[in-house]
Amino acid sequence: MKKLMLLNGPNLNRLGKREPDIYGSKTLLDIEKDVLELVKTYDYDLNAFQSNHEGELIDIIHQADGIYEGIIFNPGAYTHTSIALRDAISSISVPVIEVHLSNVHKREDFRHQSLLAPVCVGQVVGLGAKGYSLAALAFIQEEK
Amino acid sequence: MKKLMLLNGPNLNRLGKREPDIYGSKTLLDIEKDVLELVKTYDYDLNAFQSNHEGELIDIIHQADGIYEGIIFNPGAYTHTSIALRDAISSISVPVIEVHLSNVHKREDFRHQSLLAPVCVGQVVGLGAKGYSLAALAFIQEEK
Amino acid sequence: MKKLMLLNGPNLNRLGKREPDIYGSKTLLDIEKDVLELVKTYDYDLNAFQSNHEGELIDIIHQADGIYEGIIFNPGAYTHTSIALRDAISSISVPVIEVHLSNVHKREDFRHQSLLAPVCVGQVVGLGAKGYSLAALAFIQEEK
Amino acid sequence: MKKLMLLNGPNLNRLGKREPDIYGSKTLLDIEKDVLELVKTYDYDLNAFQSNHEGELIDIIHQADGIYEGIIFNPGAYTHTSIALRDAISSISVPVIEVHLSNVHKREDFRHQSLLAPVCVGQVVGLGAKGYSLAALAFIQEEK
Amino acid sequence: MKKLMLLNGPNLNRLGKREPDIYGSKTLLDIEKDVLELVKTYDYDLNAFQSNHEGELIDIIHQADGIYEGIIFNPGAYTHTSIALRDAISSISVPVIEVHLSNVHKREDFRHQSLLAPVCVGQVVGLGAKGYSLAALAFIQEEK
Amino acid sequence: MKKLMLLNGPNLNRLGKREPDIYGSKTLLDIEKDVLELVKTYDYDLNAFQSNHEGELIDIIHQADGIYEGIIFNPGAYTHTSIALRDAISSISVPVIEVHLSNVHKREDFRHQSLLAPVCVGQVVGLGAKGYSLAALAFIQEEK
Amino acid sequence: MKKLMLLNGPNLNRLGKREPDIYGSKTLLDIEKDVLELVKTYDYDLNAFQSNHEGELIDIIHQADGIYEGIIFNPGAYTHTSIALRDAISSISVPVIEVHLSNVHKREDFRHQSLLAPVCVGQVVGLGAKGYSLAALAFIQEEK
Amino acid sequence: MKKLMLLNGPNLNRLGKREPDIYGSKTLLDIEKDVLELVKTYDYDLNAFQSNHEGELIDIIHQADGIYEGIIFNPGAYTHTSIALRDAISSISVPVIEVHLSNVHKREDFRHQSLLAPVCVGQVVGLGAKGYSLAALAFIQEEK
Amino acid sequence: MKKLMLLNGPNLNRLGKREPDIYGSKTLLDIEKDVLELVKTYDYDLNAFQSNHEGELIDIIHQADGIYEGIIFNPGAYTHTSIALRDAISSISVPVIEVHLSNVHKREDFRHQSLLAPVCVGQVVGLGAKGYSLAALAFIQEEK
Amino acid sequence: MKKLMLLNGPNLNRLGKREPDIYGSKTLLDIEKDVLELVKTYDYDLNAFQSNHEGELIDIIHQADGIYEGIIFNPGAYTHTSIALRDAISSISVPVIEVHLSNVHKREDFRHQSLLAPVCVGQVVGLGAKGYSLAALAFIQEEK
Amino acid sequence: MKKLMLLNGPNLNRLGKREPDIYGSKTLLDIEKDVLELVKTYDYDLNAFQSNHEGELIDIIHQADGIYEGIIFNPGAYTHTSIALRDAISSISVPVIEVHLSNVHKREDFRHQSLLAPVCVGQVVGLGAKGYSLAALAFIQEEK
Amino acid sequence: MKKLMLLNGPNLNRLGKREPDIYGSKTLLDIEKDVLELVKTYDYDLNAFQSNHEGELIDIIHQADGIYEGIIFNPGAYTHTSIALRDAISSISVPVIEVHLSNVHKREDFRHQSLLAPVCVGQVVGLGAKGYSLAALAFIQEEK
Repeated sequence: MKKLMLLNGPNLNRLGKREPDIYGSKTLLDIEKDVLELVKTYDYDLNAFQSNHEGELIDIIHQADGIYEGIIFNPGAYTHTSIALRDAISSISVPVIEVHLSNVHKREDFRHQSLLAPVCVGQVVGLGAKGYSLAALAFIQEEK
Repeated sequence: MKKLMLLNGPNLNRLGKREPDIYGSKTLLDIEKDVLELVKTYDYDLNAFQSNHEGELIDIIHQADGIYEGIIFNPGAYTHTSIALRDAISSISVPVIEVHLSNVHKREDFRHQSLLAPVCVGQVVGLGAKGYSLAALAFIQEEK
Repeated sequence: MKKLMLLNGPNLNRLGKREPDIYGSKTLLDIEKDVLELVKTYDYDLNAFQSNHEGELIDIIHQADGIYEGIIFNPGAYTHTSIALRDAISSISVPVIEVHLSNVHKREDFRHQSLLAPVCVGQVVGLGAKGYSLAALAFIQEEK
Repeated sequence: MKKLMLLNGPNLNRLGKREPDIYGSKTLLDIEKDVLELVKTYDYDLNAFQSNHEGELIDIIHQADGIYEGIIFNPGAYTHTSIALRDAISSISVPVIEVHLSNVHKREDFRHQSLLAPVCVGQVVGLGAKGYSLAALAFIQEEK
Repeated sequence: MKKLMLLNGPNLNRLGKREPDIYGSKTLLDIEKDVLELVKTYDYDLNAFQSNHEGELIDIIHQADGIYEGIIFNPGAYTHTSIALRDAISSISVPVIEVHLSNVHKREDFRHQSLLAPVCVGQVVGLGAKGYSLAALAFIQEEK
Repeated sequence: MKKLMLLNGPNLNRLGKREPDIYGSKTLLDIEKDVLELVKTYDYDLNAFQSNHEGELIDIIHQADGIYEGIIFNPGAYTHTSIALRDAISSISVPVIEVHLSNVHKREDFRHQSLLAPVCVGQVVGLGAKGYSLAALAFIQEEK
Repeated sequence: MKKLMLLNGPNLNRLGKREPDIYGSKTLLDIEKDVLELVKTYDYDLNAFQSNHEGELIDIIHQADGIYEGIIFNPGAYTHTSIALRDAISSISVPVIEVHLSNVHKREDFRHQSLLAPVCVGQVVGLGAKGYSLAALAFIQEEK
Repeated sequence: MKKLMLLNGPNLNRLGKREPDIYGSKTLLDIEKDVLELVKTYDYDLNAFQSNHEGELIDIIHQADGIYEGIIFNPGAYTHTSIALRDAISSISVPVIEVHLSNVHKREDFRHQSLLAPVCVGQVVGLGAKGYSLAALAFIQEEK
Repeated sequence: MKKLMLLNGPNLNRLGKREPDIYGSKTLLDIEKDVLELVKTYDYDLNAFQSNHEGELIDIIHQADGIYEGIIFNPGAYTHTSIALRDAISSISVPVIEVHLSNVHKREDFRHQSLLAPVCVGQVVGLGAKGYSLAALAFIQEEK
Repeated sequence: MKKLMLLNGPNLNRLGKREPDIYGSKTLLDIEKDVLELVKTYDYDLNAFQSNHEGELIDIIHQADGIYEGIIFNPGAYTHTSIALRDAISSISVPVIEVHLSNVHKREDFRHQSLLAPVCVGQVVGLGAKGYSLAALAFIQEEK
Repeated sequence: MKKLMLLNGPNLNRLGKREPDIYGSKTLLDIEKDVLELVKTYDYDLNAFQSNHEGELIDIIHQADGIYEGIIFNPGAYTHTSIALRDAISSISVPVIEVHLSNVHKREDFRHQSLLAPVCVGQVVGLGAKGYSLAALAFIQEEK
Repeated sequence: MKKLMLLNGPNLNRLGKREPDIYGSKTLLDIEKDVLELVKTYDYDLNAFQSNHEGELIDIIHQADGIYEGIIFNPGAYTHTSIALRDAISSISVPVIEVHLSNVHKREDFRHQSLLAPVCVGQVVGLGAKGYSLAALAFIQEEK
């Protein structure tokens, strides 16, 4: 059975606990369940991870190599500062789609540049929790 | 019946005619048909437009106000230079999702910044022709 | 009879239709009438044009040469991006006054620089619809 | 009786004494008289001040609060360097219109940015001594 | 019979009508005739177009594909602002030589960078109307 | 009993062990004791933590929510590079005061900008170990 | 008897008179009294000055040399523009602590850089009127 | 017996597993063995560590103080982003030589600047796995 | 009798009182006497002024017009921040030579740019108190 | 008999010896012969020089004054770094046309700016060895 | 017999004559002897050159082609300014290793960027005269 | 007998031959004579050199060490580009005064920064040929 990874970076464990007007009232667990349900309808499995530690995220990415069809990755604030995560993504052959819940282009200047985007397949930005599902669909419905 | 607009900017009329290895072999017409078929299964209609003229794109956006549920917009090169299109999007109440076929973050520096993204709902970047469909789904499956 | 031109650029056809708290509830037509009435009391005529097309604005400016005493020009978003409009203004001998309804210096950074100002006579900024009339007066009451 | 203040910053006491080809042959006194005459026809009074001292200009602005309907202010070179004057304008409720005799956008780069414009109502730039009168009219003919 | 295209961008229709000391007294028509005569002596044909509209220039470039041996293109002010024209040139297989009448490097800073040069074969800059003929010769006398 | 947190970031475990002329001869333990003693005189408790791991600091900040009256935080070098810590502070409702032992503005350029300051209440900079106590007092003596 | 100076720069004479929601309802006089009371409990005296004139502030700083134990200085907007005040502080041996009522790092970009900080002992930022008292304590409780 | 430390940062555990054409086919273990063998011939011992965690690398560097003659350090991507590692190196007295396998100056712009180089003894860049051995020799053959 | 003016800006009244190792032990009065003595041997007179107030320096410069052969001006820190002094110098016909005691190019970056130099005749930099005398000689020994 | 100079800068003596796919297989001697032959058909003479020494190129340019009708100059890498060559060209009255074999705008960023272009008549860029001949023609067929 | 070249750029002829505390007391001749002795033990020969002339260094590099196994090059200050030397290195097939005696990253900002590094094999920085020997070893012990 | 060196860089051999309105009609020889005469009256000797070659200027500076009391140096365009000359000046103990005939601050931006000024004693700028004599006097009349 084909598998996708759902990976969330720093502070995303706080989802649904605060600022529900911005990020919605769903917790990260709710979101992980929703995406799991969706991918199952296509006979895929999904493993979900979250960490606030840059090094841990790198370890998880390394271990994904050869196991997953794709990684749906919301790198949170590390999007803008981590060359090490960029190198980790480059060092594996699993394709990665970068997801952001909010429209980062409406926020502070330092959130406009992604160090990871150039080594990802693409991005889904500002479409809320739904963005994770759309990224999953993008992996499942490969262009023929 | 609810309607979506599919709007394409400069040079996208050339799709499928050249550089098929980069942009795929589908013509713009093929893509427009695919998205139309998809939205029909959800009881939506779709109108598609393309123009190489910045002023014409502004006119089309103005006329969309009050008629469409959402605009799926690939502004091509105007993404990076047109404050006038940004103002046009701001001047209507229809939400817009920005779509790019290729991963603009892997290309020249001047393609990394979008003047339109801050006034759009969000972006789908680098996921090929499929990106238009995912944007359509994002409009149809509004967060409940 | 001496003539002035009132020229408005992209998105100004939307005046009065949206965001009345920002731009006032007057339509562009209302404004054009007001200015016409004012200049008539000084025995001047006024022709008014609006276009969302950069190329059309250039054509209109070219045709103004030798016919008008002055152009009252709100170039909208093209203020900040169009070297071609700048060259058009340079290529005629009719003097131009740049007008902005809102105070562009309170808005986004990219609205702070005008590419056209250096080739215009001057600017009237942030004084609302009244700004067009003040610019007209500036042309009519030439310094003796 | 309603009152306006006409405030001029550094070096404007030299008007008419030098470089008449650039700034015209009128002295500051001539200009102050012209504006006074104009506002009187609308039943307004006008008080005029000039100082080369940044601190003195701040003191004058503070004292204007609650007394004047508006300040017509040509801050001269302090336009580009004085955050303190900006804070002074922000600290009172009298509206301010910034006036420049010459078109500062045709001059050195450091004259293109105004630190004061974002806290003023608007600007009149490059229309010569007439600019003071137009600013006065803008205060008198409040949009209805 | 082999054909070349001579394409001129915004404001070049004003050639010879104004500022003859800068741009010479030849009109655009004179220049087009001169180049036509030259290429005829080499058994080439020439079609000449001019437009002030960015979108129209893009349309003309698209239609050139497969028909012309080369395009001699003076993009005027769009040289410095149009990524869309750059993409249009990239999307066809006809080679393009960029021509500027005046030495843009002696003029304002924003005229020093060409967005089009990296997708053209080369440039001829500052050699006046003669520059068009030299570019034509460059296409005709292909390196053996 | 009300509680404050004293949180120290990377390399601050080295305090007092090296470069005593710069950072004083007090160890981190000495400082933690001093602040504890001070806050006890105001009937407050204090918990102190130190970590060199960005992810661990984020975890500690998350767990502070709802438990502490305030966090006295010396983020060390992460001050200048960690958007993730900034987001962590934003995601809780406990107020944070940023403390630096040395005057960072006298040091290298890259130490002059704080990514965290905009989401903190304020800063105490360059006042040595005493700075921690002053920050504690600021929390205890809330403006009435 | 040891003496401290409390020095306030431009616009701080307006404290409590306007924008009380931002700066609190205390006037500058209230604050000066509070700090005086505090330092008296430690057997210190305090002299307080305020000026909107950069030159006057320089004069006051020069005269402080050899008389005061420390200067608590809120330079207001001159923080960001005055190299002359920086040189004045460098030219005396009395230590200076820079105080800001509001968190300048949450405000406009041009308020993020302090030209004075590198020649001061340290900074207290964003802790309101209490910041003056904390700075006074920092001078009184010298590290032993 | 004198000891050297061989320290490798993020993603270097992937050596030899991927992109062998760029980084060679040697694993990190192979390299560690080679350097160990070399230093033994000079009667030195070598301890080797690798971590993807910035905080862990800081801990390891702290613990090196007083134990090693030198640290041969390939900080990987943290070279360009970690001020915290820079401070860790500054906080110990063991000298550090920075090593990079590939020539970072041939790669992306953000890899051209090293935050660590100014606090290291020197650098060996682009000489492949051999670079580690040359750095070891540099420590062993101290200038006499 | 021909007259020269010796004008000193902010903080130069502190000369000789502090940092004698940097600025020498001569007071400003000593220097003024030395230059006076020198110019007398050439039958010139000299008037000397110093002020810490930017506005006062502007007033003094205005009053110099038509009275002095030249101004020897050390603008201190205002060199780098005062556009108003620049305009004052431009507004008179007396030539000005800018003098700096220390070599400003060896100091902080913000001291490397002079806003005044472009409107002065020239500069004498880093030659100590002697620099004033050399500037005086430059005025006296006009090129024949 | 009228004479032109063909001047080549650093590394152009290597032409034809290496990277023939980039620069063609013609040696510099071949090119010099071709241009000589061409100009002879117009009754012009040609002298050709090459040097890798910036100082030598300056000497050659000085000596050209009053002797040549024009200089066809490929300054190689000195194009981007030599203000001294710029001054040398400014110091003579012989007009210079700058030639580059390859399209420098397709190469590294530091090759996009020419320090010499503003003091040359114009440029021929990216048209290969043929570019030298076109420049020669430009000198010979002076606009009538 | 295989040969290496040891090439030193501007001011390195001064080694050992001045600032021995920075650069050591060895003269360039001493260093050249040391490296020669080292390479002889591996049956290599070494030729050493030094020049202060950029053009001469280019000539020497050209002549190295096909004769040497590698060039050990300390380009001194030309490292940061010479695109011409970069092009010279690119134009030959002999590999080059860039060597710097001091740690350039601890010095002025303009010494942090090397224009040559991207066309060299690698760099040895800050390891003193020993750096030349390590570079020689890097050439001799080619990775197997 | 004490000796001074008068050293002139690129293009200064052209003095008096061209642009006499800018640089005066004196040749370099005239100037050298004038300075020689002046220094003789103080019992000093003077040797004068000029070169267009950066390397030659470096050689001359090296040879000055231990022989001259001071070097009066007009580095021409190398002022702004030559780190190698800067290093040459640093490598000798003879003090250098930088002289410029014209006021470089009135000219192009790239002439405003001197790479040499920070390692010179000081500068004399914009005082014409007289500047050389004033620099000589500065060396002769050492501060007592």
